[in-house]
Amino acid sequence: MIDPTQKIPQIRPQPTRVALLGFGTVGSAVARVLAAQQFAGVELTHIVNRNSSSKRQTDAALVIPPSVQWHDDPAAVLAATDVDLVIETIGGLDPIESWLAQALRSGKSVVTANKQLIAYRGAALAAIASENSVQLLYNAAVAGGVPVVPAVLQGLQGDRITRLSGIVNGTCNFILSHMEQGADYAEVLAQAKAAGYAEADPSADVDGYDARAKLCILARVALHAELNVDDIPIQSISLLEALDFQYAKELGCTIRQVSRAQLGGDVVHARVAPMLVPLTSPIAWSHGTQNMVVTTGEFGGDVVFSGHGAGGNPTAVAIVSDLLAIAHGSCAVSLETTPRRVLGEFLAPHYLRFIVDDKPGIVSAISGALATVGANIDSILQRPGYPKHRLPFVVTTEPCLTSTIHRALTAMGNFECMLQKPLALQMLTVDDKAED
Amino acid sequence: MIDPTQKIPQIRPQPTRVALLGFGTVGSAVARVLAAQQFAGVELTHIVNRNSSSKRQTDAALVIPPSVQWHDDPAAVLAATDVDLVIETIGGLDPIESWLAQALRSGKSVVTANKQLIAYRGAALAAIASENSVQLLYNAAVAGGVPVVPAVLQGLQGDRITRLSGIVNGTCNFILSHMEQGADYAEVLAQAKAAGYAEADPSADVDGYDARAKLCILARVALHAELNVDDIPIQSISLLEALDFQYAKELGCTIRQVSRAQLGGDVVHARVAPMLVPLTSPIAWSHGTQNMVVTTGEFGGDVVFSGHGAGGNPTAVAIVSDLLAIAHGSCAVSLETTPRRVLGEFLAPHYLRFIVDDKPGIVSAISGALATVGANIDSILQRPGYPKHRLPFVVTTEPCLTSTIHRALTAMGNFECMLQKPLALQMLTVDDKAED
Repeated sequence: MIDPTQKIPQIRPQPTRVALLGFGTVGSAVARVLAAQQFAGVELTHIVNRNSSSKRQTDAALVIPPSVQWHDDPAAVLAATDVDLVIETIGGLDPIESWLAQALRSGKSVVTANKQLIAYRGAALAAIASENSVQLLYNAAVAGGVPVVPAVLQGLQGDRITRLSGIVNGTCNFILSHMEQGADYAEVLAQAKAAGYAEADPSADVDGYDARAKLCILARVALHAELNVDDIPIQSISLLEALDFQYAKELGCTIRQVSRAQLGGDVVHARVAPMLVPLTSPIAWSHGTQNMVVTTGEFGGDVVFSGHGAGGNPTAVAIVSDLLAIAHGSCAVSLETTPRRVLGEFLAPHYLRFIVDDKPGIVSAISGALATVGANIDSILQRPGYPKHRLPFVVTTEPCLTSTIHRALTAMGNFECMLQKPLALQMLTVDDKAED
Repeated sequence: MIDPTQKIPQIRPQPTRVALLGFGTVGSAVARVLAAQQFAGVELTHIVNRNSSSKRQTDAALVIPPSVQWHDDPAAVLAATDVDLVIETIGGLDPIESWLAQALRSGKSVVTANKQLIAYRGAALAAIASENSVQLLYNAAVAGGVPVVPAVLQGLQGDRITRLSGIVNGTCNFILSHMEQGADYAEVLAQAKAAGYAEADPSADVDGYDARAKLCILARVALHAELNVDDIPIQSISLLEALDFQYAKELGCTIRQVSRAQLGGDVVHARVAPMLVPLTSPIAWSHGTQNMVVTTGEFGGDVVFSGHGAGGNPTAVAIVSDLLAIAHGSCAVSLETTPRRVLGEFLAPHYLRFIVDDKPGIVSAISGALATVGANIDSILQRPGYPKHRLPFVVTTEPCLTSTIHRALTAMGNFECMLQKPLALQMLTVDDKAED
């Protein structure tokens, strides 16, 4: 008779032979995490990196077993019959898409951290994986070490998720959470560059391209919607000033780069932009480079995921977890998605910050322009201590569409007193609704 | 030639035929979530509930298809050959354990929300499931609608999680987050009962039994450790007073019922108790009935999960997600666990609250008793406004073991001036370590 509490011996299949494409920060972290834990059923067999002979001399390569084959060129590895799974940590669309397609077509599963590739070409690559009965997993492509993708796919598939919002770019969050403490944009951007959080050209982060790709992937996983990445509007955080955080605080808010998507009939409302976030919202909890995603389900309500969104080790945890899921025979969840048109705006209150040469009648002119487009003013704030010839003040509106606000701002463009282009930010509220 | 972007038609197997044990709050929510979403590949075929004929007359039963068979007794369903999967929403150990063992032995997978059963008998049931090549999933048993179990199993298996702490009892969190706002224990407990958050006998919640079972399950999933449930010490929240929250606030903290477990060599440090939590800690974010779990991985660092820990619909989401994972052929992650001995304490600063009849020499006597056991005082706080004959004051210590503190408190038991038993609470810090 079998003792029910006795451990059942596991019959291990042949180990999954793994080729690692890229041995930079993330690739070497994957090797380190694998070496430190020696997972059963997994064997790193190939590493591909340009100029691999010099990579082999780095400290990061000390953990690599001597049996591992190093290559400069992926061709031999992608076609190899002694590789079962390819991990891609290089990034970019070209030539990576064709490499991974080749790997999938030759019967290899693929694990990737490549957000741009999965955002733009994920559906096509998933189809190739399905045709070839292999798996394509990309948990590391969104929020690094925060397992929001597997959690949604495995743990929330019983719900109907109708919207999500997140902080998915650690660089922007580092900058904005420091500006919240009083730092200046340029000053904290320089600090982020020095700390290695921001690139020399920070555009992909601060202008929203990086977050937009991740939002697209989250929309696929959580809303089952395929969006055209370039249709999602992005707004840069680079126009924010220290005074915006002071005004935000008066409104009980802070400012974060928020990536939002929400189902609305046949469309998905989606936008990446700096937004005012109530201090009571989980979105305001995130500090430093942390990432955070909040999903809202029809039955389960809000679920919050938070943690390290980037960095070698957290990203490697996501990659190795995907690898183990495949190696240990956990099957991919079948994800049925529908292409959806993007509407780039939400029905929301807006924060408008003007810098004017103060003359009588300005408030009347601005409120007139807003009234003309049908936007109702909720509050007018003017902090003391600024010179009259360069006076910042803030108007908040009742919920309206961003396009409505922009029509009013266009009309205001003619006002002589307007010293710079007004800043318009969406305000998150506790019970935000997209336009229906 | 195959168009790679074309959708591959999915060949559906026969639908998974589901029997639902229990048609109370959670069971009827499962039926509602299934009816609302009509998932492919899943069919509810049987419902078992005592006195089922009256349950069939309730409004909750309106969503049940007429094809579903209702039974008063589980026997016929557990042995049935036309049931593939059993969902259990009844709770308790006996007779549920034997029912579910019978279901597993007859080739049925099991999805359960039964935390006590999985905490005490999960390993044995998992072994039966494994022997019979069926699955046993229990994501709903911890933190209801927060998918921490699948997220850890699928998304963090590449990390080495060394500790976790959580707020896993919504009733306690409701009470404590209201006491933080100034409410009295008895008053807010009555309010929790009226709102349906607390039972007539609230002991399972306020004394920590419920949280302890969940901590045990989390330790299995995240730390791969099998703990003896009854070895984990629990401390009731019922001895907290409003003044403890005032003192906690002075220390930059609030108080929460925290469930902690941490690997330490061959043992696991584990405890369920009200603890002081820094206001800057994610643990302090949780308000109302929300649940929160924070895992700490060697490579990925802290990951935070938060959401609705209880209630019919969130729990049903967890159950239906498990059901879909099995029905759609996603395989269970093989979880290899090791039995570990529990050490019920941590090396941590402690908060000691005394209520004394103030006489000269008291502070000296108390600090002497602490010095005798080797506990160093970090601060002494005494808020004004209390009568000298019934004076509360607080001592915080540098990190030491709870057992050390209790030795000192035992010695103090002889002090005549001590009007009631001192309250000793562990204080969480940002970089807590267990004793090594």
